[in-house]
Amino acid sequence: MNECDVVVLPEGVILKAARGAILADVLRNSELPIRLDCRLRGVCGKCLVEIIRGDAAEPDETERFLIRNRQADGRFRLACRCRIQGPLTVRIPRESLLLSIPALTEGFRREFILDPPLRKFAAAPAAATLEEPEAVLDLIVSRFGDKKTLISPAALARLAASGSSAERTITVVMHGNEILDIEPGDTTERILGLAVDLGTTTVVAEVVDLLMGRSLAVATALNGQARFGSDVVSRISAAHLNAAALGELRDAARETINLLIGELLARIGALRSDIYEAVIAGNTAMTHLLLGLPVATLAVAPFQSLFSALPALPADRTGIRINPAGRVYLAPNIKSFVGGDISAGLTAIDIENGPHSLLFIDLGTNGELVLKHGGILLTTSTAAGPAFEGMSLSCGMIAAPGAVHRADFVDELALGTIDGGPAVGVCGSGLIDLLAIALDQGWMTAAGSISNPAKVIVISPAIALLQKDIREIQLAAAAIKTGIKRLLAEAGLSPADLDKIVVAGAFGNTLNFRNAACLGLIPSVAENKIDFVGNSSLAGARILLLSAAERDRCEALVRRIRHVSLAQGPAFEDAFVESLEFKPWK
Amino acid sequence: MNECDVVVLPEGVILKAARGAILADVLRNSELPIRLDCRLRGVCGKCLVEIIRGDAAEPDETERFLIRNRQADGRFRLACRCRIQGPLTVRIPRESLLLSIPALTEGFRREFILDPPLRKFAAAPAAATLEEPEAVLDLIVSRFGDKKTLISPAALARLAASGSSAERTITVVMHGNEILDIEPGDTTERILGLAVDLGTTTVVAEVVDLLMGRSLAVATALNGQARFGSDVVSRISAAHLNAAALGELRDAARETINLLIGELLARIGALRSDIYEAVIAGNTAMTHLLLGLPVATLAVAPFQSLFSALPALPADRTGIRINPAGRVYLAPNIKSFVGGDISAGLTAIDIENGPHSLLFIDLGTNGELVLKHGGILLTTSTAAGPAFEGMSLSCGMIAAPGAVHRADFVDELALGTIDGGPAVGVCGSGLIDLLAIALDQGWMTAAGSISNPAKVIVISPAIALLQKDIREIQLAAAAIKTGIKRLLAEAGLSPADLDKIVVAGAFGNTLNFRNAACLGLIPSVAENKIDFVGNSSLAGARILLLSAAERDRCEALVRRIRHVSLAQGPAFEDAFVESLEFKPWK
Repeated sequence: MNECDVVVLPEGVILKAARGAILADVLRNSELPIRLDCRLRGVCGKCLVEIIRGDAAEPDETERFLIRNRQADGRFRLACRCRIQGPLTVRIPRESLLLSIPALTEGFRREFILDPPLRKFAAAPAAATLEEPEAVLDLIVSRFGDKKTLISPAALARLAASGSSAERTITVVMHGNEILDIEPGDTTERILGLAVDLGTTTVVAEVVDLLMGRSLAVATALNGQARFGSDVVSRISAAHLNAAALGELRDAARETINLLIGELLARIGALRSDIYEAVIAGNTAMTHLLLGLPVATLAVAPFQSLFSALPALPADRTGIRINPAGRVYLAPNIKSFVGGDISAGLTAIDIENGPHSLLFIDLGTNGELVLKHGGILLTTSTAAGPAFEGMSLSCGMIAAPGAVHRADFVDELALGTIDGGPAVGVCGSGLIDLLAIALDQGWMTAAGSISNPAKVIVISPAIALLQKDIREIQLAAAAIKTGIKRLLAEAGLSPADLDKIVVAGAFGNTLNFRNAACLGLIPSVAENKIDFVGNSSLAGARILLLSAAERDRCEALVRRIRHVSLAQGPAFEDAFVESLEFKPWK
Repeated sequence: MNECDVVVLPEGVILKAARGAILADVLRNSELPIRLDCRLRGVCGKCLVEIIRGDAAEPDETERFLIRNRQADGRFRLACRCRIQGPLTVRIPRESLLLSIPALTEGFRREFILDPPLRKFAAAPAAATLEEPEAVLDLIVSRFGDKKTLISPAALARLAASGSSAERTITVVMHGNEILDIEPGDTTERILGLAVDLGTTTVVAEVVDLLMGRSLAVATALNGQARFGSDVVSRISAAHLNAAALGELRDAARETINLLIGELLARIGALRSDIYEAVIAGNTAMTHLLLGLPVATLAVAPFQSLFSALPALPADRTGIRINPAGRVYLAPNIKSFVGGDISAGLTAIDIENGPHSLLFIDLGTNGELVLKHGGILLTTSTAAGPAFEGMSLSCGMIAAPGAVHRADFVDELALGTIDGGPAVGVCGSGLIDLLAIALDQGWMTAAGSISNPAKVIVISPAIALLQKDIREIQLAAAAIKTGIKRLLAEAGLSPADLDKIVVAGAFGNTLNFRNAACLGLIPSVAENKIDFVGNSSLAGARILLLSAAERDRCEALVRRIRHVSLAQGPAFEDAFVESLEFKPWK
């Protein structure tokens, strides 16, 4: 028999392999996420695996050198140099895992190395002797290398309470070079993080297993700040005019996130104290309000944020109820109203390694745009309002059960709802379809005027589009169009020059790009040039939670992006008015 | 007239200088503390001075290069290359100041560069534009280079509140690469720090002007923990046996320091919020108790501390009432009972640059010893008890008004008190003198037995030495002697090999070294080999407050020191018993 089993831990996957095959090939062909940085050239030493039991040919001198170089011992092999001789059980250690975020479409399947800033180490400190009574902390720190290690008095007290002097095993919770906490026993298998998309309308939170990079549960809620207005501007105004309102807006955002945390933890049976880090991606206004920071500089021109990148903050000073010794990291703001939701989105699509000319459109409450052209990165934000998220329309609703999310017209109007049940309202993608149909059928003019004298387009017994609804969408679409035109002009490009248009936002994958193009919301390009990536803000937050290197890259990326302002007098207004017409791009 | 005036700011000193003289020579001859790292070779560029007005020859190309290299502009000159042509007014900037701590004796006059981790910068942030709406924080941080800057949400809120967007001047309070606080206006002239010697018996605190490195006021109080016992061991026991006692000991230490802070601030007319950093030097037990950390590991063999060096802690988490955004740094513990008071003391005497073979003796409640021999550093601590500080003796008292601090016998006993007033008790140095006299006069035997049948040595109407007092001193002195012998043996040295003996502690300069040697408390060496340095713990804390580089050096030094344990069965007991006799070293 020339085939044998290879069992791969910790997943427990069983693979069939030919005797004599190279382990890395077997793993790769099964899409097991192992690092192969040098592409099997056998020089990077990153594909370290632990041989639990079984037969493999002996390593040669080069492999032994590479293994020693990684500070690994004889139990380890490099998968790319390990020839299978018989049944084998191997474990892929965390540092050899390559993560792949599957939420995004194939065009931007995103790979990165699992290396979260937050890590746990089990330690059974060596006993001190009378001759060398090393400090308890020093005995532990010596295990993690020479780098200066930070620790709080609270964590020191926990160290003392863990009875480490009695040589019991403890778990050290580290964030970068800082010891956040000490847990008694070996708890390294339980290490959770939280990714949050803090949207103006909707807040999505996800609990992630940091050991394996897996999403454990996702939950969504409306942002509790909504009572101060559905758009960013009204919340900034409220906070700017009234210090008490600023406090209430801060507390509302915190409570929304804290309620989601409670719901997620109940679902997976974990404790708040298990979560040691949260990464929150939100627009500039949301992150300022979350921290309770004055928004005066965002309220008046030139619309400055107070900060772009911040270090990970002590959780107990942010009001986010994860482990109080934990950290809260905010995805960095780019400039002005282009915030951390966008920097997270750009991380999710790995814009730097994407096609040469790429336009990123986030259709949220603000319409944010990023244009990449070679090494140039430009951004702007538009006051699109919450129409695309279904808010502020008489028939609008978020993408929830009962929402019309797509519509078609062959002989008659056919509506599709998210849950297949009766239609109770229309969400963003449904609106685009309905408007395209209305234009095509002559129910409204290209200028957005409803053709019938009653000025109502009846969609179903429960749903009707009013003239004011159409005006709202029209203004939002014109804002986006104007912004796209401005960025393209700034880079000297025409829509045909774009290799890719990436659309992110609540639309998800249900937006009909032909309808969107026919209304002029996005340029008319070949279908294969368009990617819908859904909630890239959450996907980016998850990556920033799982990779210290991606966090650094994101902060560096943000500094490279140039802001283009739209509010510039008559030229802007002309372009805006011209964009009001519903028609495809030339 | 060949002479002219040179006015030196900020001190306003007026010097006479010959026309044609080099400015650095003039400053150096007047002992003005300017950095001359390359000793006037004109290559290091450290002696930068600002020419406020007056005549000096033009700089040459090399000097211009060095000045540009220091990022200075045309107003600046290098003092070592600046030839005086006429009356001159110059300002020595902070970074060119060399500090000299005068508290210690001439043998260890200590020079270091004034470069505190805590600094203030005035900034008038450039206005953001619509085209480049840089974040407010980024506009400020860009002034301090590329290093990653940390900031808390509280400091961000203060930044927002300072109305910096209106181009008003603000002051940024930085600690290392962290922005601690923002103050409106230019407050760079007001920057205070606190140095504390947290002794078991006595606590001394000093307010220091960090801009000029000057001491502004010093105050002393008894450690409020005294009600739990006068020695370290009884306090550790109390805290170890009872969690409530640990909290009370913590609070007592904090209250003592906070009361001293209040007293000092009242005296100089400053506010708590002006002090942004405190450096506290205390023995291992004191620093653990101050932080409220469990002392279990200090209570039982092998007597481990929990930590040696800690990062500067947020003040509001330590209970020390300086500016709540400030930092508290603890001088690093060495090992076991050899704590931060000793590492500060070693910093104060710059032990690394001291003589080849040096013995450092700190005669506090614990007697701590450090022996340097070339590159070797050994330390040990002895349970000397508080006898040398005047505690625990029937006639003992601390070195305060009314204390006998020296005694003489020619024809009769002559007592000197600290204030010259009537004697009410005896402090450490007085006790040594009295015991030496008692031995010399035959009032007691070398074995410490009082010769008269009443077993009382009457010193004055108010003061008498009892047999139990002598036993207490005898045990304390024997502990010190045994420790010194052990360290010398470990290094293979005899007392004659020592280049220097440095005695630190409450004795100050009043200890009669001949009497101490005659009792055998210290080895008999030539008088010029002995230095009394007083409170080197406080002096070291002050240096650690004023110099980031010295802080790093101190932490590195601590890691090099090897601990020698005294508690090792019969050999130790034999050595101890042998040391009980009052007699000079062989």
